[in-house]
Amino acid sequence: VTTPRIAIDAMGGDGGVRVTVAGVALARRRHQGLRFTLFGHEGQILEALKNHPNLSQAAEIVHTDQVVAATDKPSQALRQSRNSSMGLAIQAVKSGEAGAAVSAGNTGALMAMAKLALRTLPGIDRPALAAFLPTLGDNDVVMLDLGANTECDARNLVQFAIMGAAYARIILDLETPRVRLLNIGTEELKGTDQIRDAAAVLRGMTGLPLRFDGFIEGDKIGSGEADVIVAEGFAGNIALKTAEGTARFVTDVLRRAFTSSIRSKAGFLLSKPALQLLKVHLDPNNHNGAVFLGLNGAVVKSHGGADEKGIANAVHVAARLVEEDLSARIAEDLSRVGSIKSEELVAK
Amino acid sequence: VTTPRIAIDAMGGDGGVRVTVAGVALARRRHQGLRFTLFGHEGQILEALKNHPNLSQAAEIVHTDQVVAATDKPSQALRQSRNSSMGLAIQAVKSGEAGAAVSAGNTGALMAMAKLALRTLPGIDRPALAAFLPTLGDNDVVMLDLGANTECDARNLVQFAIMGAAYARIILDLETPRVRLLNIGTEELKGTDQIRDAAAVLRGMTGLPLRFDGFIEGDKIGSGEADVIVAEGFAGNIALKTAEGTARFVTDVLRRAFTSSIRSKAGFLLSKPALQLLKVHLDPNNHNGAVFLGLNGAVVKSHGGADEKGIANAVHVAARLVEEDLSARIAEDLSRVGSIKSEELVAK
Repeated sequence: VTTPRIAIDAMGGDGGVRVTVAGVALARRRHQGLRFTLFGHEGQILEALKNHPNLSQAAEIVHTDQVVAATDKPSQALRQSRNSSMGLAIQAVKSGEAGAAVSAGNTGALMAMAKLALRTLPGIDRPALAAFLPTLGDNDVVMLDLGANTECDARNLVQFAIMGAAYARIILDLETPRVRLLNIGTEELKGTDQIRDAAAVLRGMTGLPLRFDGFIEGDKIGSGEADVIVAEGFAGNIALKTAEGTARFVTDVLRRAFTSSIRSKAGFLLSKPALQLLKVHLDPNNHNGAVFLGLNGAVVKSHGGADEKGIANAVHVAARLVEEDLSARIAEDLSRVGSIKSEELVAK
Repeated sequence: VTTPRIAIDAMGGDGGVRVTVAGVALARRRHQGLRFTLFGHEGQILEALKNHPNLSQAAEIVHTDQVVAATDKPSQALRQSRNSSMGLAIQAVKSGEAGAAVSAGNTGALMAMAKLALRTLPGIDRPALAAFLPTLGDNDVVMLDLGANTECDARNLVQFAIMGAAYARIILDLETPRVRLLNIGTEELKGTDQIRDAAAVLRGMTGLPLRFDGFIEGDKIGSGEADVIVAEGFAGNIALKTAEGTARFVTDVLRRAFTSSIRSKAGFLLSKPALQLLKVHLDPNNHNGAVFLGLNGAVVKSHGGADEKGIANAVHVAARLVEEDLSARIAEDLSRVGSIKSEELVAK
């Protein structure tokens, strides 16, 4: 076995090459065995690497001047950006040079290029974007799809459930993840046809390493009652962003409260170490690294605004996917339920 | 003009008759001119009224033993519960005895019964459930639909925009509310066909007392950038509940932080007056009272778990709707855009 290698789109994030390279260097400390290929402007990358000799030893640079802009449409990126830092990083996964790619660039372009280059796994109609959210329970929850597919049918949702469970088993180290479908009520009659149909199929499945627990509502996402939450991309994206926005809203109101008087400022100073807990829990950088599940290869999307620690987290996610061979595990689960799935879904 | 009267389903909430009656009594202090009809178990209502002589003077009781259960399906309630406390309260609005009804009972049943008894306004295909959410801006934001309609077409969404704007003008006292459609991106190409079609119609409308500002994402709901946010019921419900759940999540983590050490407990005590601000901002009771818009009559849904203050808020919302004659104002706006609406939407 050769040393696992991760392809990095060095030009993607809002923080530029410096932040990306610093983040990769941070991740490298945690995963000493990894090697990296950094795609992007060679001069800028070399400059950024000066501060990180530990990474320099483990990294190759592949120069390109082309960058996918945040404003590029996916169709535009597909036509024009094969040789961009993002496009080359994906190509490295396709050719097998790298086990996974990480990019903090344009999500739509990354999705479109990854899908075209890597193709979906046998038995998967569409890939899904999955990420971890914090909970009050013992572990984070995997949520998917977060916006890769605006509309989904029952078959897509069932496939997302299987992929999400495989992902949770690897990253959360759970034997039988508890899976739920995001819905507007918990009674069997609630929701759209596709959600009810997907629930019926999942209830009937046996022999899978997951437990289907029915529906979950938006207010229970962080409750710890589920390990995997499956949604169509529209609702999943709305839920993810609403959660982010609300957390920011509450901490903003809190900040105003703490600075409203000298007395409360003093209280804030006293409570500061404890309040770190809140910050750690809510910092999106600690949950950075969304994964496109269902492709022949691992592609991790970092938040555009991620800092060093956030980038390092996204690289860590990629490293785990390579170590555990996620695509093979998903393919294995799919083959195990292949016959059940087809029968049940054709009946719809 | 006769004294405005509000019909109260006294049996609806989780807190029982006592909490409902106490809440109505609280609201009555703010609206001295109002009269009330309390529908429900006479003995229990009389018992609860003993503590509230100010309300006793302004209230009539209509006895019924029938109550819609939280577990009743809407179809069941429609068949069996015409003479329940909820059903009679709605009938009082239909007959004109009351200007509005307030219930903290089963949402699906309330919606179904209100729709059947009151019918939709001319030009409205479906009613929508609307409520206020807190923002960091100068005023709350009206959000609709919150789950009355699982799936919506472009025509529904345009009607929701007009109804939501009329509601915002009345309750928020705004001349030209800023209206946005909830979507998974802000570019014109994002989202489902029905959302893009609705946006096209709203962009083309003139002469309406609202300003259409395009799309808004889930993380900006509380930003104060919009006065009215329009969503299909599925996504609207997911967003509302995710916001509620996240706010509770953050305050839970905060509570744990504050009780984690003696030092942080002391900090908490010092900051307590300031933290009240957060509590007031986030307490769902301060935003209680969702309205079914688009019916020939006003029906207000209180949260099942609302306390006295929450019930009082829902009654206050009902009072404002009666004072300002919401249904007439929506009908007026609809007639003003009638021709534009039909042409544009038929073209789709």
